[in-house]
Amino acid sequence: MHTILNYIDAQLPSYITQLKNWVRIPSISSGAQEDTASAIHQASDFLAADFKRIGLLPEKVQIGTNANPLIIACSPDSNANRPTVLVYGHYDVQGIDNPRSAWDYDPFGAIEQDGYLISRGASDNKGPCFAHVKAVEAILATTGTLPINVVFLIEGEEECGSLALTEFIATGGLDRFGPIVCTIISDTSMYGPDKPSLTLGLRGMMYTELTIQGPRQDVHSGLFGGIIHNPNQVLLQALATLFTPEGHIAVPSFYDNVQPISSQEKAMYDQLHADPMTYQQELGVRQLTGEPGYSILERRWVRPTLEINYLNGGSPRTIIPAQARAVLSSRLVPNQDPQHIEAAIQTHIRHHLPKPMEVQFSNTHSSPAYYLDPDHPLVPAAMNAMRTGFDVEPLLTREGGSIPVVVDIAKQTQAPVLLIGLGQLSDNWHGPNERFSLRDFHRGIRTSAALLYEIANR
Amino acid sequence: MHTILNYIDAQLPSYITQLKNWVRIPSISSGAQEDTASAIHQASDFLAADFKRIGLLPEKVQIGTNANPLIIACSPDSNANRPTVLVYGHYDVQGIDNPRSAWDYDPFGAIEQDGYLISRGASDNKGPCFAHVKAVEAILATTGTLPINVVFLIEGEEECGSLALTEFIATGGLDRFGPIVCTIISDTSMYGPDKPSLTLGLRGMMYTELTIQGPRQDVHSGLFGGIIHNPNQVLLQALATLFTPEGHIAVPSFYDNVQPISSQEKAMYDQLHADPMTYQQELGVRQLTGEPGYSILERRWVRPTLEINYLNGGSPRTIIPAQARAVLSSRLVPNQDPQHIEAAIQTHIRHHLPKPMEVQFSNTHSSPAYYLDPDHPLVPAAMNAMRTGFDVEPLLTREGGSIPVVVDIAKQTQAPVLLIGLGQLSDNWHGPNERFSLRDFHRGIRTSAALLYEIANR
Repeated sequence: MHTILNYIDAQLPSYITQLKNWVRIPSISSGAQEDTASAIHQASDFLAADFKRIGLLPEKVQIGTNANPLIIACSPDSNANRPTVLVYGHYDVQGIDNPRSAWDYDPFGAIEQDGYLISRGASDNKGPCFAHVKAVEAILATTGTLPINVVFLIEGEEECGSLALTEFIATGGLDRFGPIVCTIISDTSMYGPDKPSLTLGLRGMMYTELTIQGPRQDVHSGLFGGIIHNPNQVLLQALATLFTPEGHIAVPSFYDNVQPISSQEKAMYDQLHADPMTYQQELGVRQLTGEPGYSILERRWVRPTLEINYLNGGSPRTIIPAQARAVLSSRLVPNQDPQHIEAAIQTHIRHHLPKPMEVQFSNTHSSPAYYLDPDHPLVPAAMNAMRTGFDVEPLLTREGGSIPVVVDIAKQTQAPVLLIGLGQLSDNWHGPNERFSLRDFHRGIRTSAALLYEIANR
Repeated sequence: MHTILNYIDAQLPSYITQLKNWVRIPSISSGAQEDTASAIHQASDFLAADFKRIGLLPEKVQIGTNANPLIIACSPDSNANRPTVLVYGHYDVQGIDNPRSAWDYDPFGAIEQDGYLISRGASDNKGPCFAHVKAVEAILATTGTLPINVVFLIEGEEECGSLALTEFIATGGLDRFGPIVCTIISDTSMYGPDKPSLTLGLRGMMYTELTIQGPRQDVHSGLFGGIIHNPNQVLLQALATLFTPEGHIAVPSFYDNVQPISSQEKAMYDQLHADPMTYQQELGVRQLTGEPGYSILERRWVRPTLEINYLNGGSPRTIIPAQARAVLSSRLVPNQDPQHIEAAIQTHIRHHLPKPMEVQFSNTHSSPAYYLDPDHPLVPAAMNAMRTGFDVEPLLTREGGSIPVVVDIAKQTQAPVLLIGLGQLSDNWHGPNERFSLRDFHRGIRTSAALLYEIANR
């Protein structure tokens, strides 16, 4: 292991140069236009070529005609007598018009400054993804073999719905790799700078759009105000009933199956001493709020939420609008059934509409939460690898966000997913000036190499 | 009178030709661009030239440098021994991009079809305004003199806030005309086809925009959902408290000073037998609603309202928005003080925000309701004139809309405003395919001529 780690340390400048070349390819998939298709292929080809160069067997898998290709790469000495580890990542990146003027740098310039690589996709997800590729490169370069079968599965549609990957998994695409012992994914965040963590849980998601229809077209509020339902009013009165004055969600049965947190896990999170002032300053709010009786981290990680993400109706004129629209979404926690939550929310809203007003729901989709038992035997393996890679004591945490593909992979492989984030919450994923710490890139490569041996030796 | 009416009947084709020439000038003032300025001047010059031709003394009044000019025209034989009647109208028109593709005709083509003149501004307000001009022309042509002093005050900014006129009135511009016995305005609607009416009341208006500020920028609902206030939720929960479940407005003191309707006036409106099915079909709603205990016309005309005209917050993505905005407006009735209502609504909303959330109000403006006592001696004068002009029994009605300048003029002149609409609700003011009945143009000219004699003879 020592040889491998020394080799990684020595090769780091070269690995950083390679990463810069990869992030310079503007492989935007989110709302992608015709003119980004070539960058998608360029970025996937770059990756496939790198896999080939380091000794893996890459394959470009095209699902349907319009999908962005999956890059699959197997270790050269894979055999059925050894367990297989799956490594997931994505080479596609978010757009840069959010807005473009908010960027202080060329979004694809791969500038290095103060130890950070500043570029769209540097942290989400090319940098963390590439750390695993370089770990395998270092092991092969120094030992000529891998301690375990490794399969990379790198998609190009994470930022636009993972349709091709979802179809690949649903149609048994993972079966050909044989039994998977676990999947490694670095698409979460570290708990903080110098605080690597294994993410035990992700929240699930229920998303829906709703529309209340009023008169055929916007009508004059003077001529007709007083005799017809105003869709804006109907909408907000119905949505207001979703919440109790105390800050709970008022939908019947919403909390019924919520998995309580163990006293050990609660104690673990309490010891992280989340500071409200830090959040207030970062978010620019004067006070935090939330469900009474739960700590900040419980509210972010282990309690379900319901948010009104979008409201839109009418115009700033004296009219009664033809239509009012909203988007609401719920972050779900282990044991909550998305279909049940979806039905409960829709029933509740319908129940709170004045007759004969109706609501149309559309674009509804959902996925359950992910949870890894902290007593699982691979948890200490992951913690040991982080100790080796980072030279600090790692943490066990959860995250409040949702990565549906994690749930899909865990379900299909019947094996745990080890979520080892290498980026920071402050890396500004999806925003301007996205960045990635090159020190954590280095420590991530070391962790990844150590982890393959830890898993192989269990 | 007989001679004058016969003359009007004979001259009608010529008057219609003149009106067509006027409406062909695209004098758009609403959100006007540089390229409409010449049309504004062309339309005002057209009117001034017509006043001069028929024997009035026109004047083009320019308030400030950027305002659209007021056209004032006095009768040639005005003298201080006779009462003066003010006639108000406007030569500016709404835009046509609402949307442009919805027009089935050239918006300024002045096409005549099935007895209607189809053009932007035909009904709002060039046609009704021109009817009064032609009435004076006919009287002067047949008798050489007017029975009363007449002053026309025709503005060019009605569709964009009447700023110049408001300043003209506020700075005593009307004083030079001496005591005004009444103002005649045809900028309301008839109760229906063949149902001319004197509009006794207009509702007032309180309009305000509000903003709830959340985090500095939109934030990820997974990462931060559960620990900060969502501005959309704060907004809709506060706005929901404005209404009772029964359909009343829940703001304390909102109804305190509402002037009750007399039993005579109520009986008058009940006899109009407003049909809910007609409204439902016209508006495209399945059922009417409104304040319990009041008829359809009372809810449209004599009861105050509160509408949420606009809702906007966030985007259709899984975020917690930085900001949520709404526009609300109230239609006010006689005796309600707009400033009191404004304060009561703002206080109520502030009271229903969770601490430390705040609301910013902006663009707040208001004007009181207008009401003419049906026992005023000029009411029978107006009714007689409509009998002469239309040859049907006219009605007394109110309207639910607001015309702030009516209140300003009534207050400044200390005299009643006679609101005699010549257009129909179905004329599609501000919408595509605006039209004006040329039969009502004819009957409006006759009514106007008769009205000047009715007022002179009181």
